[in-house]
Amino acid sequence: MTVPHPQASARVHDLLAQMTLEEKAAQLVGYWVDQGGEVVAPLADEMVTTTKYADATAHGLGHLTRVYGTRPVDPVERAAWLWEEQRRLRAETRLGIPAIVHEECLTGLAAWKAATYPTPLAWGASFDPELVAEMGAAIGDSMRELGIHQGLAPVLDVIRDPRWGRVDECIGEDPYLVGTVGTAYVRGVQSAGVDATLKHFVGYSASQAARNHAPVHAGPREVADVLLPPFEMAIRDGGAASVMNSYAEIDGEPVAASAHYLDEVLRGRLGFSGPVVSDYFSVAFLQTTHGVAGDLGEAAELALRAGIDVELPTGDAFAAPMLERIRSGEMDAALLDAAVLRVLAQKERLGLLDETFETPPAAVDLDGARHRDLARRLAAESVVLVSNDGTLPAASARRIALIGPNADSAEALMGCYSFVNHVLAHHPGTPHGIDLPTVRDAFVAEYPDAEIAYARGCGVEDDDDSAIGDAVDAAAAAELAVVVVGDRAGLFGRGTVGEGNDVDDLELPGLQRQLVERVVATGTPVVLVILSGRPYAIGWALDGERRVAAALQSFFPGEEGADPIAGIVSGRLSPSGRLPVTLPRSAGAQPYSYLHPRLGGPIDVTSADPTPVRPFGHGLTYTTFAHEHLQASASVAAGDTLEVSVVARNTGERAGADVVQLYAHDPVASLTRPVAQLMAYHRVDLGPGESARVVFSLPTARFAFTGRDGRRVVEPGRIDLWVGSSCEDRESVTAIEVTGEHVVTHDDARIVPVRVVADAELVSPGR
Amino acid sequence: MTVPHPQASARVHDLLAQMTLEEKAAQLVGYWVDQGGEVVAPLADEMVTTTKYADATAHGLGHLTRVYGTRPVDPVERAAWLWEEQRRLRAETRLGIPAIVHEECLTGLAAWKAATYPTPLAWGASFDPELVAEMGAAIGDSMRELGIHQGLAPVLDVIRDPRWGRVDECIGEDPYLVGTVGTAYVRGVQSAGVDATLKHFVGYSASQAARNHAPVHAGPREVADVLLPPFEMAIRDGGAASVMNSYAEIDGEPVAASAHYLDEVLRGRLGFSGPVVSDYFSVAFLQTTHGVAGDLGEAAELALRAGIDVELPTGDAFAAPMLERIRSGEMDAALLDAAVLRVLAQKERLGLLDETFETPPAAVDLDGARHRDLARRLAAESVVLVSNDGTLPAASARRIALIGPNADSAEALMGCYSFVNHVLAHHPGTPHGIDLPTVRDAFVAEYPDAEIAYARGCGVEDDDDSAIGDAVDAAAAAELAVVVVGDRAGLFGRGTVGEGNDVDDLELPGLQRQLVERVVATGTPVVLVILSGRPYAIGWALDGERRVAAALQSFFPGEEGADPIAGIVSGRLSPSGRLPVTLPRSAGAQPYSYLHPRLGGPIDVTSADPTPVRPFGHGLTYTTFAHEHLQASASVAAGDTLEVSVVARNTGERAGADVVQLYAHDPVASLTRPVAQLMAYHRVDLGPGESARVVFSLPTARFAFTGRDGRRVVEPGRIDLWVGSSCEDRESVTAIEVTGEHVVTHDDARIVPVRVVADAELVSPGR
Repeated sequence: MTVPHPQASARVHDLLAQMTLEEKAAQLVGYWVDQGGEVVAPLADEMVTTTKYADATAHGLGHLTRVYGTRPVDPVERAAWLWEEQRRLRAETRLGIPAIVHEECLTGLAAWKAATYPTPLAWGASFDPELVAEMGAAIGDSMRELGIHQGLAPVLDVIRDPRWGRVDECIGEDPYLVGTVGTAYVRGVQSAGVDATLKHFVGYSASQAARNHAPVHAGPREVADVLLPPFEMAIRDGGAASVMNSYAEIDGEPVAASAHYLDEVLRGRLGFSGPVVSDYFSVAFLQTTHGVAGDLGEAAELALRAGIDVELPTGDAFAAPMLERIRSGEMDAALLDAAVLRVLAQKERLGLLDETFETPPAAVDLDGARHRDLARRLAAESVVLVSNDGTLPAASARRIALIGPNADSAEALMGCYSFVNHVLAHHPGTPHGIDLPTVRDAFVAEYPDAEIAYARGCGVEDDDDSAIGDAVDAAAAAELAVVVVGDRAGLFGRGTVGEGNDVDDLELPGLQRQLVERVVATGTPVVLVILSGRPYAIGWALDGERRVAAALQSFFPGEEGADPIAGIVSGRLSPSGRLPVTLPRSAGAQPYSYLHPRLGGPIDVTSADPTPVRPFGHGLTYTTFAHEHLQASASVAAGDTLEVSVVARNTGERAGADVVQLYAHDPVASLTRPVAQLMAYHRVDLGPGESARVVFSLPTARFAFTGRDGRRVVEPGRIDLWVGSSCEDRESVTAIEVTGEHVVTHDDARIVPVRVVADAELVSPGR
Repeated sequence: MTVPHPQASARVHDLLAQMTLEEKAAQLVGYWVDQGGEVVAPLADEMVTTTKYADATAHGLGHLTRVYGTRPVDPVERAAWLWEEQRRLRAETRLGIPAIVHEECLTGLAAWKAATYPTPLAWGASFDPELVAEMGAAIGDSMRELGIHQGLAPVLDVIRDPRWGRVDECIGEDPYLVGTVGTAYVRGVQSAGVDATLKHFVGYSASQAARNHAPVHAGPREVADVLLPPFEMAIRDGGAASVMNSYAEIDGEPVAASAHYLDEVLRGRLGFSGPVVSDYFSVAFLQTTHGVAGDLGEAAELALRAGIDVELPTGDAFAAPMLERIRSGEMDAALLDAAVLRVLAQKERLGLLDETFETPPAAVDLDGARHRDLARRLAAESVVLVSNDGTLPAASARRIALIGPNADSAEALMGCYSFVNHVLAHHPGTPHGIDLPTVRDAFVAEYPDAEIAYARGCGVEDDDDSAIGDAVDAAAAAELAVVVVGDRAGLFGRGTVGEGNDVDDLELPGLQRQLVERVVATGTPVVLVILSGRPYAIGWALDGERRVAAALQSFFPGEEGADPIAGIVSGRLSPSGRLPVTLPRSAGAQPYSYLHPRLGGPIDVTSADPTPVRPFGHGLTYTTFAHEHLQASASVAAGDTLEVSVVARNTGERAGADVVQLYAHDPVASLTRPVAQLMAYHRVDLGPGESARVVFSLPTARFAFTGRDGRRVVEPGRIDLWVGSSCEDRESVTAIEVTGEHVVTHDDARIVPVRVVADAELVSPGR
C-alpha cells in the first residue's frame, strides 16, 4: 500500500497492541441483527449469515448494521435495546469497545416514523446547497439522538444514463452540481456529529447499458474529470468521514479489489484518511460475481489489500474465512492493522471509547415541525415547470379532475431508500408512521371551493386499461385535468425505479402514456405531473401534436411534496426547480450526457439524433428573467481566479426564483472538451422588476482537465462563457483569454468552491 | 516520435534529399479528380477543394483518390485516362514520380461493372477465412489490372453495438474472428500486389450510443484486449501494408492527433512500418469537429506529429495550410521527412518508381466466372438458418408467394460500400453494370414448376401500408410465403444502414414488422428472409406467439446472393452460416457483447435483461452435429501451446457443414474475464454419419489479457473449455490447468494463429 498506517492517537495504538487476531477481525465487520427476518438487500438470500450474534460479538464488533432500518420497530423501544446492547459490548467483551451504529439516511433517516425528504434528484433540481445542508443537519440530529453514528449517504455518482434504476438516488448529471449539493449534505449531517459516507466510490453510475453492477467502460480521463470530482469536493471541502466502494468494475478491474482506486486515488490523490466501508456484500461478490477471488478468504485479502477497512453488512469474508486464511499462513495478519487503526480512530473521534450508554432517549420526535418545514421548502424548490402554454397558474379552476396512478398515492412521493418503499413494502398493513398527504389531499386543501373528481385511470405498471374510460369521463367533465403519473420506487423487481430496477425503455411505465393521451384527447387542458425517480422520454407529451397544456416534473418530493405541487398549480407558489438531468429523447439514444464534446451531440454524420427533449438546467417560472451584462476581465493567468459578474433581472410581473447558471466552453484544447460545462450557479429570489448582480469568484482551476500526460492542466487560450436559462441557451455571452499554463496539484484544492456574491449586491433594493 | 525514420532504400533517401518542401508536401496528399461532380463522402460539401488539379500536381502527387469509384465511368476508358495521367506525372513533374491510385474495395472493387461480393458480416458468418482469401485475391487482381495500388479495406472494427450504421462493414463481434477473417482478406488482396489498408485504427465501432463519430468511452484494457487484436493479427500475421486512422476520440483523445495510438501503439507495440493514411477529411476534422486544432495548419502538424503520413482524400490541411505554417516558421519542415520516406518506400515497393505506363488494358472482365463463382460460394456459406420448425427445406412447394420490399430488389443484396449503393444511387437510370438477379429471379429459376406470386407489400422504410393487403392475399393463396425484408444500404440518411445511418431502435425499419405479422396471421407457413446490414431485434418473429415457420438471416450477400437463398429454401443447398454477431434483444439493451464478464449478462441484481434473442455462433443446418470427446492435456505451462481435439459427428441424414467452435472461460483471474471467448474455430463438411477429429494447436497466449500493470499476461489456474453450437452451448466440456505465469511480449506473436488439423484426420472415411 502506498499509504502508511493512518495517524491515530497513542490510546488507539495501545488498544491495537493489546488486541488478539480475533479482536482485530471483529472490529472490521458489521452484524445485521434483524437480517434473518426480512430480505431487504440484493442477493441477501444467498448471503444470510449463519453465525449467531453471540458468537459474532464474542471478541467485539465493528458495526451494528441497520438497527432501525431493517423492519418497522418503534424507535424509542429500539433505542432502549441498543443502549443495552452497547453496554453489554462494553461489559462483556474483553476490550469493552462499543459498536458503530450505521444506518441508511439518503432521503432522511431510514427508520419508522422518521421524516422522509425529497430524493437527491430533487436536491439537484433545487440548485440550493444551503437548504440541503439544513436538511442534512436535521437528519443528522435525528440519527445522533438515536445513537446512530454513521449514515450511508450521500450518493455522489454522476448520472450517465437515465436507464439506470438508481438514478433517483443521484443528484444530477453535472459533477459540480453533484459535488456542491453533495458536500452541503455532508456538512449538514456531520454538523450533528454523525459521519457521512460517500458512495459509491467510484464509477457505479456509468455501467454498460445502465444495468446495475454491469461493467463500466470508461477511460482514466473520464473517471478523473467526470466521476471523481464530487468525491474530491466532499472530502476536501466537506471533510467527509467515510467512503463506501462501488460494486462496479472499471475496464475489467473491480473497485472492491482495486488498490489503484481505493488506495492510490482515494487516499493518495484525494487525501482521504478515514475508514472505507464495503458496499453490502461487495467483498463476497469478488468471488461470486466478479470471479477475481477463488474463495471468500481470498476475497477478504484482496479487499483489505486494496483499501477496504470494514466489511458490511456482516462478516461474510472478513470474519471466519479471513481468520482461516491467516491461521493457515496464506495471509499476513499484519494486513489488518491499518484498517483496525482507522476503525478505532473513528470510534475515538465519535466518543464511543468513552461513552457509557446510561440513558437511552425517553421520547423522540423524528418528524416534527422542523423536519416537515424543511421537507416542504426543499420540495417546493425542486419542482420543475417543464412546459406551460399559459394554463398555469390555474387559480380559478373550479372543476378539477385529478387523474392517474400517482394522484392519490403516498408511496409515489418517495424514493427507493425511503423507509416506506424500502422496508414497509415488506410489511403490508403496517402504518406509514408519518403523515403522507397525497397530491389529491393537497388539491382538496388547495382548492377548498372546487369540485375535485378523482380517477386513478390505471396502475403505475400493470396492463389493466379498464379504468381509463372513467378517467376520460372525469376529464371531459372538468375544466382542468391534472394527470399525475410516473414511478413507483422499489428494489429488485418491485417497482419501476430504484436499486435493480433498470430499464431498456424510457416510456412512462405501463399504460400511463395511453392514459395521458386519452385524457388529452378530451380537449380539457391537461396539467401533467410526473412523480418519478428518473427522467422519461416525454417528447410526445411536450411537443407532440396532442401536447399537454403544462407539465411539472417532480423527482420524488418526499412527505411534504404534495403541497407545493398543488400550490404551484394554483399559483400560490412559483415554480423554481431546474432540470438536474437531461430530459432524454429515447432509451435507444442512451447513453447521453449534456457534458459531451461536439461529436457527442447531434451532428450531420449520424442519423441518430440524441437531442434532448429539454436540456440540463431548463425550468420555467411564472415570471421571466433576463441575464445581462455578463462581464469578466479579458484575460486571466492560469492558476488565478476570475471574477465573473452578471445581472439577473426579473422582467415579469410576479416574484420568482432565478437560478443563474454560468457555463463555459473551451473551443480549442489539446483534447476534446464539452460543448457546455456548468462552472457556477446561484439561486436568487427576485421580485417583479428587481435585479441582482451575481458575482462568481471563479478559479481558473474550474477550466482544468486531465491532459495527455495524466496531469490536470489549465491550458492557455480562449474560454467562452455564457449565462442563460439552460446549458443550451447562450443568452449573455463573453469570452476570456487564459494566459500561460497551470498544473493543478491535488493539495491545490483541485475543485475550489466558487464564491458567490449576490443578494448583497442587489442592483435595485430587494424583495 | 518514438520511432525513427523508417527504413528505406538508398534510392528513396536520395530522392528525399533532392526534394523541395513543396515536392515533399505533394507526396503526402491525395487529389480527388471527380469530387466536384458528386458528393459521395461525409461532410464533403464542406470540404470540396478549390485547388485546381494542375496546381495541386505541379510538384507531384501522393495519391489519386477514387479514380474509378466516384462516378460510373467505363473502366477501360478510365484506365486509358489514368495511364496517360501517370505518364504526365512522370514527364511533367520535376522528379517524375507517379501517384498511388487508391480505391474502395470492401465488397469488391468499388467500380462500375466490377463484381460485388457479400458484405463483411457475411464473411464473418461463413467462418471460412480460406474462401475470403480467395475472394481477396480475385478483388486484388481486378484492381491490379486497372492500375490501382491500394485498397481501402478491410474494416477491422470489432462490433460493439448493432445500432451503429457501419456494422455491415464489420466482420463480427469477436476479435479473433475479425482478426482471422480480416487477415485472410489482406493476404488475398496483397497476393495480387495490391496494398490493403486496415481501418479504422482504432476504436471507431465503440462510439457512444453507436452514433457515428461519437466519443468512445473505453479504458486502455478494453482497447488492448478487444479492439486492437485484429489489427495486430493483420499486421503481424498478414503483413498488411497500410493503415487508416479512426475518426473517433477515445477518452477525449482524437486518434488522428494521437501519438499514443498511431506511434507508440501502432508502430511501437504492433510493429507497423508502412504508411498511415488519414480517413477522409479526418485531419481537417481535428479543427472542425474535434476542436483540438485552431486552424488547418495546426491540424496538419498535429496529425503528422501523431503519425499520419498521407492526408486523404485531398490536401485540405497537408497542402497550402501546412506549407504556410512551415513558411511562417511555426512548424519544422523536417517533420515531413519520415512520412515522405514511407510514401516513397511504398511507391518503390509497388514498382511505381520504374513503371512507364505504356500500355493500358485494352479490355477487362471485372465480373467473370471466377468472380461470380466465388461470390456465390461465399454467399452460400454465409446464410444463417436462424430458426426452422421443419418447414425447410421446402422442395415440393408448388404455390409460393414471394413477398416483401427486398424480394425483388437488386440493391437489397449489397452493402453500403458497393458501387451500386455507394455511387449509382446518385445516378438514377444508369444500369448496374453487372448482373444482379434478385431473390424473386432466383426463386423463379429454383422452382421451374411452381406458381410464384409476388407482392412487395411495403417499402423498406416508408409509411405506406396500402399494398400490405395484396401481400396478405398472395400469402393466403399460397402454400408457402417467403417474406424478404431488411435494409437498404446507403450513406448519410439515404437508406437504413450504412455509414451515418445509425439508429436508436432495432425494430425492422418502416412497416416491415407489420407486414410480416400480417402475413403470418394468414396461417400460411412463412419463411422470413432478412437481407440486412445489421442484426435486428426479431424476437417477436422467432419466439412470439405468432412466430414464423423458419427464418434466414443473410447479411448483404452480394451479386450472387439470391441463388443460395432460393437453394437453401428448396433444399438444393444446406445452410451453414453462423451468427458472427449476437441477435439483439432491443435497442435499449445496448451496448451488449457476448464477450462480457458475468455482470455484463443477465443477473438478478438488474431487471434489465440483455439476453440475446440468439447467441453469437448460432446457426441451424438441415442435419444435426454432435461434438464429443473434447480432449486436452490436463495441464500446460503458461507460454506453451496446447493441443485440443474434439470429434464432430454428423448425426443426421443429410450432408452439411459444421463450424466447430472452441470457447474458453477463466473462472478466477486477477481481473474480470468474459463468460465465453472464442478460442478457435474450423469449418468442416461432413456427410451423414461422418465424423472428423478437429485438432486445434492452441497457444496459451490466447488466454492472455492485459493485467493490472498493463502487460499481457497468461495467468496460472484453471481454464474451462467447451465446444458447442454457439457460445452459450457447453455441449462437450473439459478443463485444463495453466501452470506458472507468462508475459506475452509483442514480438512473441501476441495472437498466434491457431493451427488446425481436420479433414486429414477424419475418423471415418470422408466425403
